[in-house]
Amino acid sequence: MTASSFDRVRPYRWDGTTLALLDQRRLPFQEEWIDCGDAAAVAAAIRDLVVRGAPAIGIAAAYGVAMAACQCEADSAEAARKVLAPTLEHLRAARPTAVNLAWALDRMDARLAALAGRDDWREQLAAEADAIATEDLAANRHMGELGAALIAPGSGVLTHCNTGSLATAGLGTALGVIRVGCEKGRIAAVYAGETRPWLQGARLTVWELQQDGIDATLIADSAAAHLMAQGRVQWVIIGADRITANGDVANKIGSYQLAIAARHHGVKFMVVAPSSTVDMATARGADIEIEERDPAELLGIAGHRTVAEGIAAWNPVFDITPASLIDAIVTERGVVEQPSVESMAALFGHGAG
Amino acid sequence: MTASSFDRVRPYRWDGTTLALLDQRRLPFQEEWIDCGDAAAVAAAIRDLVVRGAPAIGIAAAYGVAMAACQCEADSAEAARKVLAPTLEHLRAARPTAVNLAWALDRMDARLAALAGRDDWREQLAAEADAIATEDLAANRHMGELGAALIAPGSGVLTHCNTGSLATAGLGTALGVIRVGCEKGRIAAVYAGETRPWLQGARLTVWELQQDGIDATLIADSAAAHLMAQGRVQWVIIGADRITANGDVANKIGSYQLAIAARHHGVKFMVVAPSSTVDMATARGADIEIEERDPAELLGIAGHRTVAEGIAAWNPVFDITPASLIDAIVTERGVVEQPSVESMAALFGHGAG
Repeated sequence: MTASSFDRVRPYRWDGTTLALLDQRRLPFQEEWIDCGDAAAVAAAIRDLVVRGAPAIGIAAAYGVAMAACQCEADSAEAARKVLAPTLEHLRAARPTAVNLAWALDRMDARLAALAGRDDWREQLAAEADAIATEDLAANRHMGELGAALIAPGSGVLTHCNTGSLATAGLGTALGVIRVGCEKGRIAAVYAGETRPWLQGARLTVWELQQDGIDATLIADSAAAHLMAQGRVQWVIIGADRITANGDVANKIGSYQLAIAARHHGVKFMVVAPSSTVDMATARGADIEIEERDPAELLGIAGHRTVAEGIAAWNPVFDITPASLIDAIVTERGVVEQPSVESMAALFGHGAG
Repeated sequence: MTASSFDRVRPYRWDGTTLALLDQRRLPFQEEWIDCGDAAAVAAAIRDLVVRGAPAIGIAAAYGVAMAACQCEADSAEAARKVLAPTLEHLRAARPTAVNLAWALDRMDARLAALAGRDDWREQLAAEADAIATEDLAANRHMGELGAALIAPGSGVLTHCNTGSLATAGLGTALGVIRVGCEKGRIAAVYAGETRPWLQGARLTVWELQQDGIDATLIADSAAAHLMAQGRVQWVIIGADRITANGDVANKIGSYQLAIAARHHGVKFMVVAPSSTVDMATARGADIEIEERDPAELLGIAGHRTVAEGIAAWNPVFDITPASLIDAIVTERGVVEQPSVESMAALFGHGAG
């Protein structure tokens, strides 16, 4: 079986003129593509969560800039840079806290600046958007290989949230390792936690894997320790929203609880994320402020209210898994085993902090 | 504030003739009472989950027998015992695996047998049903006192599933300790896990506490470790479906994961259950077969499908928390701290096993 047969899902399609986005709000029941004919439509799609996942958002925005360049009437790259500035700001404001979004827009803007004096600036900007996507996919493929190599043949793995093709240019980060591990016959069983409150595991991860013919078994988030006690999993594999200089990892709420349960059972714990997630300027996880979202997310499911009126809920989005509970951090630059200040600095250099 | 102000909820009303049951399927949105005028109606209510929770089911069945006795035309207790036998079997079959149901029916049958020759057997049978309920409530009150005494003033507590007034004659087991702890000012904050897949915490526990004016904060099951890391809880307090001779505890899925996280953070772990839950004939938790329920329970929420067709799910109902992770088992007979074969035998005697 070839690698590609395990990597069929893409969150976007680009035909050189128009960006189509797979509407992730309607998955897994409807596979609906939304055509975005200009940058404003892309910004709306990002804002409305048609596309989610930091790398996928960055790619969509980059193509939004490419479309705006094709459609603007500027007669030079220099002129275009001025004309497009409000478009870039509009895209940037679509999800203010998404680091990859700002990063992709800055990269497109820098490329446009570097194209001063060239006639092919429209084509080159589109090529830059392509490059952002291609590099993301290549990084995921490399991480997939590195991570899968750590897994003993016949292992069972558990993942959390959605870190797959839907969230990236393709393949995914943690889910990329799982795809490659399945392809190479190292992974015998895949389990996915449903990931309350947003159910990314239940709605997206198991659907994605199903598209690639990978059997995954859904579990309640609270059944993970019982699963481990039965010896069914040898690795927990998750993504990361941010990795600090000492190897602490901020990721979807529930990751920390899985890491504690994994250590208790001697199950290994792997974090898979591009090096752009590593923040060497922040010393440790305790320095990260944890976002708390609307308690309403816990008071119902898919718009269906389940909890009485007047009930309070506490809804932190992320938690911090300390480096001491992590066996391997896999990035496209390489693997940090038993992460520490020293081993992180060896791969990523020293931060400003 | 008096104890009663913290114990307003009841799952049933008995007026001496008719049993009314609070329809727990419609909570927390509708507080609807279903009148059960005969034993067949009670059996249907048990089967259809109008009433749930082992002690509450046993009490409902006992009143079903009392009603059948009043309505039958037998002219003696001896004759009634024969006439009522099919009624008892019908009630027993309503939830075949519920231990308390069989226990309550056996107790009613034994009482009827002991009433041979007496004229007041109908009244005495009703009194026996009252006694079952009264004893359950008294046991819960005693456990509430014992458990609350272990909690240092100002503590935060986390509970799981529903172990409250709705599941018992009143007050509850783990939730009884929490009620008494709040009443005595020992508990400053109550957190409840939503308890996927059935959401007993989200639908029932926080509603129950709200009725008694106790503020509780709902969390995702996977947020418990993050809550503990913040120092917000000092005790996890849960119920039990079965406790083995060495102090292992079978309880709702997710309990084990909480116990691991609690130990990791130095948070204490309390199990509250009547001594009828203690099974000294079973040596250890590993000897208990864990029921797995329909995977469909994980594929949707409240009848609303959330997961793609063709996805597999693993849905164990219970897990086993080993005695080594438990700080205290609270029963109406007393408290076993740091449970072990020896300390369990000291309170409960030796089993047949």
